[in-house]
Amino acid sequence: MTLPKIGITLGDPGGIGPELILKAFASIESLPKARYVLFGSRYVLEREQEALGIDVELPSNTGLENQSRQRPSLHEVDYPLTTVEKGRPSRENGEASFRYFDIAVKEAQAGNLQAVVTAPVSKHSWNMAGIRWAGHTDYLSHLYPQAIMFFWSGELKIALFTHHLPLREALDKVEEGTLLDFFLRLRKGLKKTPLFNHEILVAGLNPHAGEEGLMGSEESDILLPAIENARKKGIPLSGPYPPDAVFRIARAQPDKIVIALYHDQGLIPFKILAFEQGTNVTLGLPFVRTSPCHGTAYDIVGKGVANAESMIEAIRLAHRFTSAL
Amino acid sequence: MTLPKIGITLGDPGGIGPELILKAFASIESLPKARYVLFGSRYVLEREQEALGIDVELPSNTGLENQSRQRPSLHEVDYPLTTVEKGRPSRENGEASFRYFDIAVKEAQAGNLQAVVTAPVSKHSWNMAGIRWAGHTDYLSHLYPQAIMFFWSGELKIALFTHHLPLREALDKVEEGTLLDFFLRLRKGLKKTPLFNHEILVAGLNPHAGEEGLMGSEESDILLPAIENARKKGIPLSGPYPPDAVFRIARAQPDKIVIALYHDQGLIPFKILAFEQGTNVTLGLPFVRTSPCHGTAYDIVGKGVANAESMIEAIRLAHRFTSAL
Repeated sequence: MTLPKIGITLGDPGGIGPELILKAFASIESLPKARYVLFGSRYVLEREQEALGIDVELPSNTGLENQSRQRPSLHEVDYPLTTVEKGRPSRENGEASFRYFDIAVKEAQAGNLQAVVTAPVSKHSWNMAGIRWAGHTDYLSHLYPQAIMFFWSGELKIALFTHHLPLREALDKVEEGTLLDFFLRLRKGLKKTPLFNHEILVAGLNPHAGEEGLMGSEESDILLPAIENARKKGIPLSGPYPPDAVFRIARAQPDKIVIALYHDQGLIPFKILAFEQGTNVTLGLPFVRTSPCHGTAYDIVGKGVANAESMIEAIRLAHRFTSAL
Repeated sequence: MTLPKIGITLGDPGGIGPELILKAFASIESLPKARYVLFGSRYVLEREQEALGIDVELPSNTGLENQSRQRPSLHEVDYPLTTVEKGRPSRENGEASFRYFDIAVKEAQAGNLQAVVTAPVSKHSWNMAGIRWAGHTDYLSHLYPQAIMFFWSGELKIALFTHHLPLREALDKVEEGTLLDFFLRLRKGLKKTPLFNHEILVAGLNPHAGEEGLMGSEESDILLPAIENARKKGIPLSGPYPPDAVFRIARAQPDKIVIALYHDQGLIPFKILAFEQGTNVTLGLPFVRTSPCHGTAYDIVGKGVANAESMIEAIRLAHRFTSAL
């Protein structure tokens, strides 16, 4: 059995990504067996290592040729930085982090990587660099319109029907055809994961899921018909459930998946229950993609206190998903 | 010091209310010192006691004249039931539970009770009885338009800007004047509670609180001006905060209050973190009103397994609030 090749992008050089990656690989024996390739800049890693005194051998320069599971290699991305703006967004950090990601994605598309794990980027850095995507998932959704933003932890598995949209616009998307299309996409996206055929609970939109029409009609007019239609197509869906109950139900049965209709419906419970161990997964791609669910955490950059647990979980989950490919 | 007089309503006779009340008073020595008056029907309590075999002396018939802290009294409400439909809504249960509540409220309005603690009612039973209020808080809001729905637990204190409205209608209420009015009402409602002058964190509406306009403009156009205006009036408010971060922040500093803009924004995190110990409080009334935050739980009625912890917490909190009156 050949080991999967997993690319890891450094993220925003001014954020906590480089620290997380150094920490994760300082105990590589606790990571699953794989050939790891970092996408970034030796300069950034060296500076971070000096600043924080993390005891880890820096990666070899073998890039995608890496055959070792003892040590990651580095794919040096051609965007020389001569200084790193730490703890705040910058144009250079935006350009660099986008390139790290973009090149890793291209290698995955070419079949040279089975998975890409991304350290956090800053939407503001990207914006300053003229990159118009609102983040990794947004860019991937452009390349793969079937892509789905999915959050994974031991307790909760959540698929987001909509994500980085104003709440009003998210409500406008709650329409029978769009929902059915999403259910079908999710089914397809789950196919190559350990969750295929797990029951899917659909959250309602209104308080108490409308309470039989007393507080909103989207449940009876839109959600229920879409769910019934999807069930006829063999998708194991149920609902709509009261939004303030469905995550408690799912938590008690962690093999279930919840569909959240808008960003905060899913992210509020997820971040409360799984902030440190949560993983952001993009489904519906021809390769695996995961990331920690926190951001660049500019406020704690350079202090050595960043918790690498979510990054390590993202790497573990990427590995687990590649074995289902 | 005279002991506060606290009314407790039996709730829907077919729900778990009677069981919770019997259980709470089976260990009255663990409840705070007060004169407790139950509003309901001896018939309902007797039947429940027989069915479940709960070892508690039934209340005396002294009603509001109760002087004992060893034993609650009963105010027998004039609505004779000759049978009780258990585990489902019914017209009789709706009529009975509304009367228990209504009479307790009238006694509180007359100054004969300092607090009313309500066991759960069924909106459907009320509906079948032709009672058009969507629950206790809805009825109280009709009597006292200043009333505010508030959720209290050890970890979280949450005020709901809107509650039992379809989500779309809740969004339409997010308007500068309405928000400012709410901030002022909340300030006033907190005056006679242990939370006066505690910092109030306002949740945003959109993902990441709009992320500086990238995902919605209500934060900059509406919330920020309303918050600044309220701060000028001396209200210790801050925000808007990203909705998926504010409850984590508040949880780490449990003397803070969070304003949630819509029902599920507040109730999703509250029910995850405080389902068993959570208390629903109505602020802005001339008396104290609390209740457990769960419902009638028809599915477990008559099994003896209902957890009285939230009911007991509601009684304790009512007592604590009366001492701040």
